Amino acid sequence: MGRVSSTIDLNADLGESFGPWSIGDDAAMLDVVTSANVACGFHAGDPLTLRRTCQVAAERGVTVGAQVGYRDLVGFGRRFLDMEPEELTADVLYQLGALDAMAKSAGTRVRYVKPHGALYHATVRDEALADAVIEAVRRYNPTLHILGMPGSLLLEFAEEAGLVAVPEAFADRAYSPDGTLIPRGDPGAVLSDPVEVAARMVRLVTEGVVPAVDGTDVMVHAESICTHGDSPGAVLMARAVREALVAAGVTLRSFAPGS
Amino acid sequence: MGRVSSTIDLNADLGESFGPWSIGDDAAMLDVVTSANVACGFHAGDPLTLRRTCQVAAERGVTVGAQVGYRDLVGFGRRFLDMEPEELTADVLYQLGALDAMAKSAGTRVRYVKPHGALYHATVRDEALADAVIEAVRRYNPTLHILGMPGSLLLEFAEEAGLVAVPEAFADRAYSPDGTLIPRGDPGAVLSDPVEVAARMVRLVTEGVVPAVDGTDVMVHAESICTHGDSPGAVLMARAVREALVAAGVTLRSFAPGS
Amino acid sequence: MGRVSSTIDLNADLGESFGPWSIGDDAAMLDVVTSANVACGFHAGDPLTLRRTCQVAAERGVTVGAQVGYRDLVGFGRRFLDMEPEELTADVLYQLGALDAMAKSAGTRVRYVKPHGALYHATVRDEALADAVIEAVRRYNPTLHILGMPGSLLLEFAEEAGLVAVPEAFADRAYSPDGTLIPRGDPGAVLSDPVEVAARMVRLVTEGVVPAVDGTDVMVHAESICTHGDSPGAVLMARAVREALVAAGVTLRSFAPGS
Amino acid sequence: MGRVSSTIDLNADLGESFGPWSIGDDAAMLDVVTSANVACGFHAGDPLTLRRTCQVAAERGVTVGAQVGYRDLVGFGRRFLDMEPEELTADVLYQLGALDAMAKSAGTRVRYVKPHGALYHATVRDEALADAVIEAVRRYNPTLHILGMPGSLLLEFAEEAGLVAVPEAFADRAYSPDGTLIPRGDPGAVLSDPVEVAARMVRLVTEGVVPAVDGTDVMVHAESICTHGDSPGAVLMARAVREALVAAGVTLRSFAPGS
Repeated sequence: MGRVSSTIDLNADLGESFGPWSIGDDAAMLDVVTSANVACGFHAGDPLTLRRTCQVAAERGVTVGAQVGYRDLVGFGRRFLDMEPEELTADVLYQLGALDAMAKSAGTRVRYVKPHGALYHATVRDEALADAVIEAVRRYNPTLHILGMPGSLLLEFAEEAGLVAVPEAFADRAYSPDGTLIPRGDPGAVLSDPVEVAARMVRLVTEGVVPAVDGTDVMVHAESICTHGDSPGAVLMARAVREALVAAGVTLRSFAPGS
Repeated sequence: MGRVSSTIDLNADLGESFGPWSIGDDAAMLDVVTSANVACGFHAGDPLTLRRTCQVAAERGVTVGAQVGYRDLVGFGRRFLDMEPEELTADVLYQLGALDAMAKSAGTRVRYVKPHGALYHATVRDEALADAVIEAVRRYNPTLHILGMPGSLLLEFAEEAGLVAVPEAFADRAYSPDGTLIPRGDPGAVLSDPVEVAARMVRLVTEGVVPAVDGTDVMVHAESICTHGDSPGAVLMARAVREALVAAGVTLRSFAPGS
Repeated sequence: MGRVSSTIDLNADLGESFGPWSIGDDAAMLDVVTSANVACGFHAGDPLTLRRTCQVAAERGVTVGAQVGYRDLVGFGRRFLDMEPEELTADVLYQLGALDAMAKSAGTRVRYVKPHGALYHATVRDEALADAVIEAVRRYNPTLHILGMPGSLLLEFAEEAGLVAVPEAFADRAYSPDGTLIPRGDPGAVLSDPVEVAARMVRLVTEGVVPAVDGTDVMVHAESICTHGDSPGAVLMARAVREALVAAGVTLRSFAPGS
Repeated sequence: MGRVSSTIDLNADLGESFGPWSIGDDAAMLDVVTSANVACGFHAGDPLTLRRTCQVAAERGVTVGAQVGYRDLVGFGRRFLDMEPEELTADVLYQLGALDAMAKSAGTRVRYVKPHGALYHATVRDEALADAVIEAVRRYNPTLHILGMPGSLLLEFAEEAGLVAVPEAFADRAYSPDGTLIPRGDPGAVLSDPVEVAARMVRLVTEGVVPAVDGTDVMVHAESICTHGDSPGAVLMARAVREALVAAGVTLRSFAPGS
């Protein structure tokens, strides 16, 4: 049996609308999650959207985190941009401060950081980029937590820098027996049945394992579960996960203090 | 005789470079001014430029202010953009937080706000826009000072909101007998002789007056002098003003505390 | 009775998605309209979206027009931006050429221009701005038509410059007895019943009149009808207009040649 | 002895200013070069700058080419952006059309394409990206020439597509004995003596060789020489190259017809 817990956090990407363009049902998701990865304006999220998202998050007691990303609106931060580490540190600092101002104006504060899209993936393995993100967070506010991929350099460097590292599991993704994710393009990599997904997440939290694609149980240590809210189906799945966890006696609570 | 003082602040717009493009001799100006109106990325200033500008400002004891503006890089914030007050409040909050993160990472903080370009002019007379800027500052940090045009609604509303309002004079501009500026397009509106400009600023600080275009002395109350650093000639003029003030026994010191 | 016709054009704003963000059901609308006002990237529309929109338009024989606007993505071109006429001319030229390349790569060409949002409204009354748009079109391709508000300076200047001016009516808007639109904020300004709207447009085309808010008939001369596709209800209304016109024996055909 | 010629083209990057920010002495360089690689707005160049650059180029008989690049103003197109080929094709089409509209309004047309910065380097070796650029050019106007690195996939694919491929030499760069450039970071990679550089370019054109770093002569086939104009020293060097070529009896003429 893996590490078990009676509490867990649910996170989702929110605040990703931009000007006239909407993405995601933020209002619905802010009733589901305990941590909101709010976009910071570089890959998504205009200032008014960010402010309103922080306001609703604050009203509902949802913890606000900074979903920092590449300055690439049209690519939604999903395209790798080969920048110098010092540029990245500055870009992350800028986004952190900008979102924190929104949070502050809404009566809360940014409590954690989760890189988005191509930056999330780049900081799993690239030392200089992972270090650049951690440097920005450390400079801005060393009490911020870092939410990311288990085993990533980002989380490793976070701990080395004295920050709290928070590994996450992925509700809708299949796992291989070694605990890594099945690559997104492979058959069966993405799960779509809310009942199955919810049951997997209950096992994750209460037993510390998820079923791998070969039928064995694989230990996964996660302190947060990543969910999605960008389609009606995604919202239903997130809600199913939440309800199953509550039914199993699990307390849903953000990993970050003072929320 | 007008209000006299033995101390004055010198301010200038800095941090306005963007990516490969440079504007202004920031290094030189940070030896001249006591307050740096640092751009915030919407009309000028990329994150790395902002960070470096804040670092040098901090090293030299120059106070950092947020030069907030319209989101219009190509127009440099000089073009009026007809936005809703709540959009403006969000845009100002975003810029304030972003720059403050840069300042914080450099060991200092943003101490004041000065709107830039078309926003500076719009908030002189437009109630809703002046109010929107003050609302953002008040929400973000009510200890921030507001630097602006004497007699502007912006300064009036700042005081009403309990913020410290700081009126400025313009080193290189001609004044009419009623204390307003000669419109920029008019003949003689812009002064170019550093010796004359320096002498005028000494009178401003030590006697509380500047000579108007009709030869009379007009009372001008200013707690800061706006200078420029965007050309070699501008830097020379700013330096001349500083040296003349020092020679006259005036102490140069920022209006904002804790710098 | 007003000017009557046996043919009419239906136009709508299309190609307004941007990166990950969708607006409007372009696929559905390209089965309804005869002219597509395709965004040009400044207020909406990324290059790939523009190219795909032009491709589908070309396949379905829908005429492509350039929906030029202010460089203001977050404001969707709906906010007035106070720019110099020569800046506007350059911005319109840039957008025209960009979209025309997309049209050309899809086997068609841009045939007309319709300013978007705040630029649409500004060019109704502002001489310098209307002139700046016409100057750009004339320089780029004087065979392009100009689609706009009846009675606008834009259409007047188009004709003076030898361009073809095409006045449009608004399917979902109420008219005052003098033929102008009821301001959008006023009660009853926007119509929502597809059956009523369709009947009004049949009268417009076959009798040259629409019922005004006071019950009288007002003569309206239009060679195109502006419809919307940004919500499921909007698509239904556009379709209802098309079907009623066809049922009344009206031929739907773009005003622009060579489409 | 390598391939010799009595004519050669000089090219330089121009039109790279943006809004308030200037780069390069375009006015001076348009008296030196025969081909202007004009930026297209994605990595540099606002519409008004592009239009004015095309106007001066047209007046002086300088051929206009499209300097297409990544949509990354702050990075000046120098940072690799990992985009899908179809996105790149659309981005190149968009830029090509936009600049061509500027050229057309100035009485000339775009005659060739040269990718900028990171895109220049990416299309040397990346098949999908080189192909995506060629696809855009072929779709837009198959009479356009492609200016690029000798031996690049870009030039190879251009020829396969029936486009005219134009290899360039680099005035201020050292060559290895195999004809490739010494990497920019290596000692001696960049040459700074205008007299030496000019003499090398005379040998390139009249003998088909340049001296390599080991003192041997290396054959280099180039139909254009890349120069720079972004600093006073760079302009002097470009002028020295031009004057030395003229003195050696070489005719300076663009490679592209109808200029």
